[in-house]
Amino acid sequence: MQRVEREIAKLIKEVDYDEVTHLFNKLTGGKRLRAKLILKIAPEHEKAPLLAAIVELIHAASLLHDDVIDEASTRRGVKSVNATDGSKIAIMLGDILYSKAFTALVEFDKEIAKAISSSVTSLSKGEMKDVKMAEEFNEDEDKYLDMLYLKTATLIEAAAYASALLANKDAQKHAIYGRNLGLSFQIIDDILDITSDAATLGKPSMNDFVEGKCTLPYIYLYKELEDKDKSRLKSSHAKSIDEDETLWIKIKMQEHGSIEKSFLLAKKLSSDAMDAVKGDEELTKILQTMIKRSY
Amino acid sequence: MQRVEREIAKLIKEVDYDEVTHLFNKLTGGKRLRAKLILKIAPEHEKAPLLAAIVELIHAASLLHDDVIDEASTRRGVKSVNATDGSKIAIMLGDILYSKAFTALVEFDKEIAKAISSSVTSLSKGEMKDVKMAEEFNEDEDKYLDMLYLKTATLIEAAAYASALLANKDAQKHAIYGRNLGLSFQIIDDILDITSDAATLGKPSMNDFVEGKCTLPYIYLYKELEDKDKSRLKSSHAKSIDEDETLWIKIKMQEHGSIEKSFLLAKKLSSDAMDAVKGDEELTKILQTMIKRSY
Repeated sequence: MQRVEREIAKLIKEVDYDEVTHLFNKLTGGKRLRAKLILKIAPEHEKAPLLAAIVELIHAASLLHDDVIDEASTRRGVKSVNATDGSKIAIMLGDILYSKAFTALVEFDKEIAKAISSSVTSLSKGEMKDVKMAEEFNEDEDKYLDMLYLKTATLIEAAAYASALLANKDAQKHAIYGRNLGLSFQIIDDILDITSDAATLGKPSMNDFVEGKCTLPYIYLYKELEDKDKSRLKSSHAKSIDEDETLWIKIKMQEHGSIEKSFLLAKKLSSDAMDAVKGDEELTKILQTMIKRSY
Repeated sequence: MQRVEREIAKLIKEVDYDEVTHLFNKLTGGKRLRAKLILKIAPEHEKAPLLAAIVELIHAASLLHDDVIDEASTRRGVKSVNATDGSKIAIMLGDILYSKAFTALVEFDKEIAKAISSSVTSLSKGEMKDVKMAEEFNEDEDKYLDMLYLKTATLIEAAAYASALLANKDAQKHAIYGRNLGLSFQIIDDILDITSDAATLGKPSMNDFVEGKCTLPYIYLYKELEDKDKSRLKSSHAKSIDEDETLWIKIKMQEHGSIEKSFLLAKKLSSDAMDAVKGDEELTKILQTMIKRSY
């Protein structure tokens, strides 16, 4: 991973603007999940660290724009760039990171460059759908999963696909692995937003619903509720709700097994991911660690 | 140009999201200066319309983000996307157009893809510098011209360079042409912001200065003023100023020939541009038409 960090630092230095270096250094790197995945799939390839650096720049750019859009004041426990330096700077920094990543992609084969760059169209589409869908209560599971795939899974899918190409491994199978890993990861994240306490989350519990996001447990719950309770749940959507109401939702979710049902889907997706790369211990371990987060 | 419009429509259709098609169709195409330039430089090449479409998508994306950043409510006489659909949608639409353009660039030679994609880093850097510089009165001409080059000229420079490569023409000379055309164009735009009336501009005259932008005429004026008047000019910076004050600035600019001096630089840059592509009537005509705007 040190080689990835060096490649990232090199790309940022090439932007040749102190302000950008300064701002970028304020970002925390996060888990570098995508970079680790790339190095695990193509550990021997000399260009794998650069590909990993590119994907991490793209991920960082998408988070910068996400935080502007969600008006988020923190990211990974520190203040977000839009909070400290304003939305304008955050938008431009995102554009710089995106374009720098695309420029560096030119060094790769056409198929790799295309996979990674088109995943950015998908993730931006996903973010737009997320914003649009939060405007009203969404009860459509397929629509939700399509948005989730675009917003969270496509970049991981593209990273797995591209690194498999680098390593002469089965790119299609690794793409399936990446897609299911991404989906499964996000569903668990959505569950944790409901089941974890505010201290663990670093933000209030059930914040997604307050922001208008009807994640899977809410969609499953809504399906099971009687008409009267359906209206009650809908009326709490996209509002700051009091403790009585959050408690009511949690009890109802327990009654109808909404969290469990969501978790079962995440597990099913993880298991599909494992099947796609059967026998690859490293990739299987990534999934197992992730699923454990939710216990 | 019909072929360019067809290529643009095709790229947008490939994004495969009705919302994006709908939003994109609300944008007015503008003058398509960059596309015309590409077609003039590489009229015979079958990929020139696609390259032109890519560059126009990039330009549209940069304007979408610019308008969010400048909080502009209109663009080319119609309401801006951030005004009608909100900043969030405008940011995401910009990201979609950028990434779609980068994906399509993969179909071109490495040198072309690199020139175009790295110009996006430059223009985002330019926009960031523009925002930073507007925070205080800038009297540094070189700093201003560097920002202008990044923000306005680099994409035109890259478009000219890339299309010359397509057409097997002298890419370096065409790059010089594009750079000087871009700079000259922007300087004239800055002059018109002062000399045109509100009706012609579609916004109040001297709006740049109100927004904190010290364009060339202000920089030249500041240099010539006595200390007392220097302070007076500075104190009007980045504020909405009354008619007396705008009149005072205009009179002082007349006294010191600030507009004329700016115009002379624009003409010098245009003439350098013409020299770079000596004998190319079409490219010379573009410049002459542009210079005439300011009469």
